[in-house]
Amino acid sequence: MLKDTLQPLSQRLQREGLDALLLGPSSDLEYLAGLRLFADERFKGIVVLSDGRLFSIVPRLYREQMEAVLGPECPQALWDDAEGFLEKVTALWKDFGLHGKTVAVNDGVRAVDLLDLEAAVPGTRFINGHRIVEAMRLIKSPEEMDLLRHAARIADEAFSALLPFIRPGVREGEVARKLEDLLVEKGADGLSFPTIVASGPNGSNPHFMGKSRVLCEGDPVVIDFGCTFQGYCSDTTRTVFVGKASEEDRALYQVVLEANLAGEAAAREGSTAQDVDRATRSVIEKAGYGKYFINRTGHGIGVAVHEAPYIMEGNLQVLEKGMAFSVEPGIYIPGRLGIRIEDIVLVTDRGPEPLSHFTKEITIV
Amino acid sequence: MLKDTLQPLSQRLQREGLDALLLGPSSDLEYLAGLRLFADERFKGIVVLSDGRLFSIVPRLYREQMEAVLGPECPQALWDDAEGFLEKVTALWKDFGLHGKTVAVNDGVRAVDLLDLEAAVPGTRFINGHRIVEAMRLIKSPEEMDLLRHAARIADEAFSALLPFIRPGVREGEVARKLEDLLVEKGADGLSFPTIVASGPNGSNPHFMGKSRVLCEGDPVVIDFGCTFQGYCSDTTRTVFVGKASEEDRALYQVVLEANLAGEAAAREGSTAQDVDRATRSVIEKAGYGKYFINRTGHGIGVAVHEAPYIMEGNLQVLEKGMAFSVEPGIYIPGRLGIRIEDIVLVTDRGPEPLSHFTKEITIV
Repeated sequence: MLKDTLQPLSQRLQREGLDALLLGPSSDLEYLAGLRLFADERFKGIVVLSDGRLFSIVPRLYREQMEAVLGPECPQALWDDAEGFLEKVTALWKDFGLHGKTVAVNDGVRAVDLLDLEAAVPGTRFINGHRIVEAMRLIKSPEEMDLLRHAARIADEAFSALLPFIRPGVREGEVARKLEDLLVEKGADGLSFPTIVASGPNGSNPHFMGKSRVLCEGDPVVIDFGCTFQGYCSDTTRTVFVGKASEEDRALYQVVLEANLAGEAAAREGSTAQDVDRATRSVIEKAGYGKYFINRTGHGIGVAVHEAPYIMEGNLQVLEKGMAFSVEPGIYIPGRLGIRIEDIVLVTDRGPEPLSHFTKEITIV
Repeated sequence: MLKDTLQPLSQRLQREGLDALLLGPSSDLEYLAGLRLFADERFKGIVVLSDGRLFSIVPRLYREQMEAVLGPECPQALWDDAEGFLEKVTALWKDFGLHGKTVAVNDGVRAVDLLDLEAAVPGTRFINGHRIVEAMRLIKSPEEMDLLRHAARIADEAFSALLPFIRPGVREGEVARKLEDLLVEKGADGLSFPTIVASGPNGSNPHFMGKSRVLCEGDPVVIDFGCTFQGYCSDTTRTVFVGKASEEDRALYQVVLEANLAGEAAAREGSTAQDVDRATRSVIEKAGYGKYFINRTGHGIGVAVHEAPYIMEGNLQVLEKGMAFSVEPGIYIPGRLGIRIEDIVLVTDRGPEPLSHFTKEITIV
């Protein structure tokens, strides 16, 4: 994979006047090289130069993995635990003529390591380079679109199979675990993020991470979940009701559903990311719940579950076919409930293509 | 929790001549405040000043969660997706008099965010502060030791229940998934890292992350796994053999076992981390396999699965009672196999206390 992505990346660095890009463990490296590095306290990175050369800096125990990805001829700064990484980096920095140059860093590099690096190679100018590979990932190829569709299909199947399991007396964590098992059973490689199951008042925290509340009759339950298929992510939210839904909750649900449909309809070539955000937000604002829609409408998706384009006010990125992002408006009323409905939408030349097919009509389980 | 840890932390900052510490999503925040923040592209942090004041910087959608942890009176720089975090940070930087001061950052802050911050609050001196909270976490309290014991007990029970499942024809990924289910069934909150199941030649990569190889008769299978209990981690490795083990593999296994036992025996008050590393390494070197033991002997453990003390050459940290770390020597022969045996050991005034009780004698399944 790296062979195909290396040339476009080095050309991009040249165009932006950068001498090199340092990539830490990140979705960028998964995209560029199919390389999944475990992010921990041991520094690991790949440096790509604008002239197309590259080298890696990894602990010795990663030698085999790096050689499999980069080939045996690629220079590796293999460092041992007892010595640390800085000495090896300094030597390669010199070999590759990087002293005094401008080096971008991506979002996989830790600030503490950057501070140590800055001290080890003084004179090098480091800049925020998180947008460099992001820009390459923005438009999905037909193959990537198929992988996103496949991941969404697995998610649909798992969610359908989950419904009978949602009932009063079950804990949020049990529902989450069951759904994760079903995702794997239906063919997922793994999860794109830890499953969120937020019942009743817990739903008002969009990123709720608890597990312990027991589901009660009448609860709205926000279920936000995603899996990966060949490295590509799904991301879906449905809010279902346990046993019954009050008239008031049904009315709120309809507002969120209308907002979701308006946002998806706006996901067209030539519109902007901001247009999509405004489409969902104006529905919720008109219904009088604007202050309870506390986050952006969505985020792009691919090898990472959050990537460009971010669907929000102020983002004037023009939508093009091949872009993929979530449309996930919500109403979050502290202490009372949350309701969110989310699909991934592909921008195509036939219009918006939502990837989830599980019903968005109100579902009482 | 934060109430108890805030004063020691601010005193430590004073002693080190630092004005503040910026903490991103990290095990430090789990330790200090029981706060688990999802690390993603949205900047989140807590700034603790040496005078004991503090404030948070989080996206608006985290308001409720932060208030629950920090209390309603703690200043929060709540930023909206459309505006970004820098404006809010700059305002609070001024309110708290941080311009021109020395601010340490911990390992939860991303380099890309630090670069943006440096530009937003010029004159502030940022330094690598990853050791500040690490030092507070080094000695476990009796309550923390009990949580580590409990997590290890869950791991023992799950591993015993796993054994009948390991047989020729099963895939590595299936074994991993089964073990993860068993950990949760036995009472784990979650996993401390993605389970490693590395069979046959895959075992020579200590951090192997594949899933697809099918287990064969005679394979050594390295199984490295961990769970959390009330936030505290377990970490165990056993290498088991499928159906049979060759004489040669048995001999290698005995070398690793002897190294493991020698390392555990060296985990005593007054010894150094380096002494423990040398104890395991000398056994493997004497047997002629030194070049195949490619990593450090171990790492500390607590709310993070890797933390100080790191058990390696050059680390002269004197061991004290209450320290907890892994002893995990291994032999890794590229293209052939890996063998690793790992326990967590507590340093106590009664000597070393290994936390795993599952047998380390060679196990044929």
